[in-house]
Amino acid sequence: MLIVMKFGGSSLETNEKIGNAAKIIEDSKLQGNDIVAVVSAQGKTTDELIKKAESITALPSPRESDVLLSTGEQVSMSLLAIKLNSAGCRAVSLCGWQAGIHTDERFGNANITHVDTKRIREELEKGNVVIIAGFQGINNDNDITTLGRGGSDTTAIALTAALKADACFIYTDVNGVYTADPRVVEQARKHCDISYDELLEMSTLGAKVLHNRSVLMAKRSGVEFEVLSSFDGQRGTLVHDFAQGKYISGIVCDDNVAMINVIGIDSGEATCELFSLLAKNRIQVDIIIRSPRSFDGLGVVSFSVPANTAKSVIWMLNEKETVIGYDRLYVEEDLAKISAVGSGIADSCIVASKMLNALNEIGLEPKYITTGEIRISVIIPKTKAAEAEKAIHSALIR
Amino acid sequence: MLIVMKFGGSSLETNEKIGNAAKIIEDSKLQGNDIVAVVSAQGKTTDELIKKAESITALPSPRESDVLLSTGEQVSMSLLAIKLNSAGCRAVSLCGWQAGIHTDERFGNANITHVDTKRIREELEKGNVVIIAGFQGINNDNDITTLGRGGSDTTAIALTAALKADACFIYTDVNGVYTADPRVVEQARKHCDISYDELLEMSTLGAKVLHNRSVLMAKRSGVEFEVLSSFDGQRGTLVHDFAQGKYISGIVCDDNVAMINVIGIDSGEATCELFSLLAKNRIQVDIIIRSPRSFDGLGVVSFSVPANTAKSVIWMLNEKETVIGYDRLYVEEDLAKISAVGSGIADSCIVASKMLNALNEIGLEPKYITTGEIRISVIIPKTKAAEAEKAIHSALIR
Repeated sequence: MLIVMKFGGSSLETNEKIGNAAKIIEDSKLQGNDIVAVVSAQGKTTDELIKKAESITALPSPRESDVLLSTGEQVSMSLLAIKLNSAGCRAVSLCGWQAGIHTDERFGNANITHVDTKRIREELEKGNVVIIAGFQGINNDNDITTLGRGGSDTTAIALTAALKADACFIYTDVNGVYTADPRVVEQARKHCDISYDELLEMSTLGAKVLHNRSVLMAKRSGVEFEVLSSFDGQRGTLVHDFAQGKYISGIVCDDNVAMINVIGIDSGEATCELFSLLAKNRIQVDIIIRSPRSFDGLGVVSFSVPANTAKSVIWMLNEKETVIGYDRLYVEEDLAKISAVGSGIADSCIVASKMLNALNEIGLEPKYITTGEIRISVIIPKTKAAEAEKAIHSALIR
Repeated sequence: MLIVMKFGGSSLETNEKIGNAAKIIEDSKLQGNDIVAVVSAQGKTTDELIKKAESITALPSPRESDVLLSTGEQVSMSLLAIKLNSAGCRAVSLCGWQAGIHTDERFGNANITHVDTKRIREELEKGNVVIIAGFQGINNDNDITTLGRGGSDTTAIALTAALKADACFIYTDVNGVYTADPRVVEQARKHCDISYDELLEMSTLGAKVLHNRSVLMAKRSGVEFEVLSSFDGQRGTLVHDFAQGKYISGIVCDDNVAMINVIGIDSGEATCELFSLLAKNRIQVDIIIRSPRSFDGLGVVSFSVPANTAKSVIWMLNEKETVIGYDRLYVEEDLAKISAVGSGIADSCIVASKMLNALNEIGLEPKYITTGEIRISVIIPKTKAAEAEKAIHSALIR
C-alpha cells in the first residue's frame, strides 16, 4: 500500500517525539508499505518565526515572510529524515519546490494548483521513505509560497489525491473527532467516522481538529483520511463520504467571538455596502441578524466576527461611515458561540427547543440564535461557555 | 556599478545589525549601484543546527544535514529582505537553488561548478536588491548542498565572477587584514592591500579572516575583493594580484595544533602508507619532519595536525598499526604554530635568524621549524603563543 502520513507540530516537537514518528513510519514500512510523510514545523516554530519577522516591521513583505516561514518545515523534515536514516530506514526529505507542490501566487495563503509527483515516485521506487515539507510550495515565478494555517493537512490531502495513495493518516495531538471537546465535556465520545460536511461545519464553527480548507479539499477530491494520535496507537476517526443518519455529531464551542451591531442602517443599499466592504477585506462573518427599527426605532444589522478581528473591523467601518451611512456602532465582546452540528438538525425545532431548554436550566437566555442546514448556534457570554457546552451535550447527545 | 556584498553571521546577528547591513545596502543603492548581497546564517546558527542534528545521531545523513543547515541562511536572507522592503528599498531574497548556484555532489563540502545568473539578472533589471543565501547550492539531482566552512565568502566570490561585478565587499567582524591579530599584538597594522598568495598562506596558517578556499577561488577567477567591517565605515583591505616587494606581510598564530610522532617507522613504503592513509581521510597535515634514527635509534615521522583532529588520527593509525608498520606513537598536545608570512621570506635565513633570536630573548627554543616559499613557521607551547607572537611581530615588522 502507498500511505500518506501527516505529522503535526506537536508530534515533532522534541527528539523523543521525532523518534516516535520515525517508529510509526518504520513499522509501516516493515509491513511492506510505501510511505510519504508530510511534516509541519516543530511545536511553536511558525509562531516564533512570525514574531521574528514582526520584530523587524509590523507589516513584513508577504513574499519574504513565506521564505522565512518555510524554513520551519525544512528543519523538521530534515531532522525526521536524519532520525530514520540513523535507524537504518532510508529516507529523503523534499521541500515543496522539490516535491513538485505548485501553487498560485498568493503569498501567505496560497492554494495548491497541481502536484508534479515525478520526484516523489522516483524516490519511492528507490525504496526511500519520502518526507515532504507541508504548508509550502512554489508558484510560477519559482518563488516559495506558504498555504496558510492548516497548510500541512492540505499538503497531505493534495498528495494523497495526486499519488492516488491507498490511505491518508493525519497524526495530531488529539486522537480523533469528538462529540465535544473532551477537555471540557467529560461525556464527549469519539466518532469512528464522520462525514466531510459535518467535520467541515464543525471546523468552521471552531473545532480545532483540522482547518476547514483541508476538509473541503478532501471532500472535493474524494480523499478519505483518518485523524488519529501519534502517541496512543489506537484507531482515530475516519473522515469520508458517509450518510450519518439523523443525529447530532458534535457540540462545538468557539470562544473567540464578538458581535458588532451597526445601528441606524436602514436601506438595502447600505446593508449591501456594509457586506461588500467586509467581503473585500476578507472578514469572516458568521451570524448575521437584520432587525428593522429594533433599537430606538432605528434599523440594526448585527453580525459576529472573530474577536481578534473586531478592532480592525470597527476601524474599517469608521473609515467608511459616510459611504455606508449608519448612525453608530455598538460592540459586544467576550462572547462564545456554541453550535450543535449534525444532519439531525434538519428537525431544527426539536433540537433548538432542547438546546434552549438546556440553557434555560442553567439560567442562560441566548440573545442570538442562528440555524443552518446542519447546525444551530447560540451566542452566550464567554464565562458561561464550558457550562453551556456540557449542558447542551447532555441534552442532545446520549 | 554592480556591487556584490557579503555579510557574515556576526554582521546579521541581531535586528540592529540587520538594520546596519540594510543601511549599507540602501546607501549604495541610492548612489545608483545595483546590489547583490550574499548572507551567512545569523551568529552561531549553523553551529546550533549542527548540534541539533547531532543530538539525534552522532553521524547525521550528509544529505539531510545540508537540508537542515541551509535553513540558517534562508532565515537571515528573508529577515534582511523584510528590513529593506519595510524601509522602502525593494529587495527579493533567493535561496541557492533559486539563484542558480550549481555545485557538485559532495554534501557538506560541495564546490560551485557554475552559476546560472538568469534569475539574478532579471531581479536586478526590475530594480530589486537581490539577497542571496551564501553557503548553499543545488547539485544535478536537485538536492540542496552546502559548501563547507567559509562557504558564504565562496558564494560571494563566485557571484562576483559570474556576474562580472565591478566590486566585491566582504563585510565581516574585523575591519581588514592585519600584520598580526590586533587583539594580541597592539602594534599590528592594517594592510591597505595584500596579494592572494599572502592572504592564502595566512589563511591556511590560521588567520581567521577568510577561508583559504574562498581566497583560492578569487585568485583563480581573478576577482578583487575588499575585506572590511560593516560597523566602522572605513576602508578595509583590498585583496588582489599585487606585487608586494620583499617584506613580511603578517604574523599568524594557530593555537589549535598537535604534533603526532610516529616512532619506529623506517621504510619509505611505511611512510608512503602513512601519508596515503592521512590523505584518504582528508587530514590536514602541515609540518612534516622525517628524522631517521632520532629516537632510541628508531626512525621517526612527526607531523602537525589540528589539535581537535588528533584523537581521530591516533585512532586511525592504531587501527592500521600493522599495515603501516611502526613501533609506537607519541603525541604532543597544547601547541601553537606561529608563522611569518610574506614574499620577504625568500631570504629565509635572515628572517629565520631574526625569529629565533626574538624567541630566544623570551626564553623559547622551538622544537619544530619549517619554511615554505613565503612563510616560516615555528611550533611552541600554546601558553607562550601571545608572548611569542608579539616578540616576532616587533622583530620582523616595523
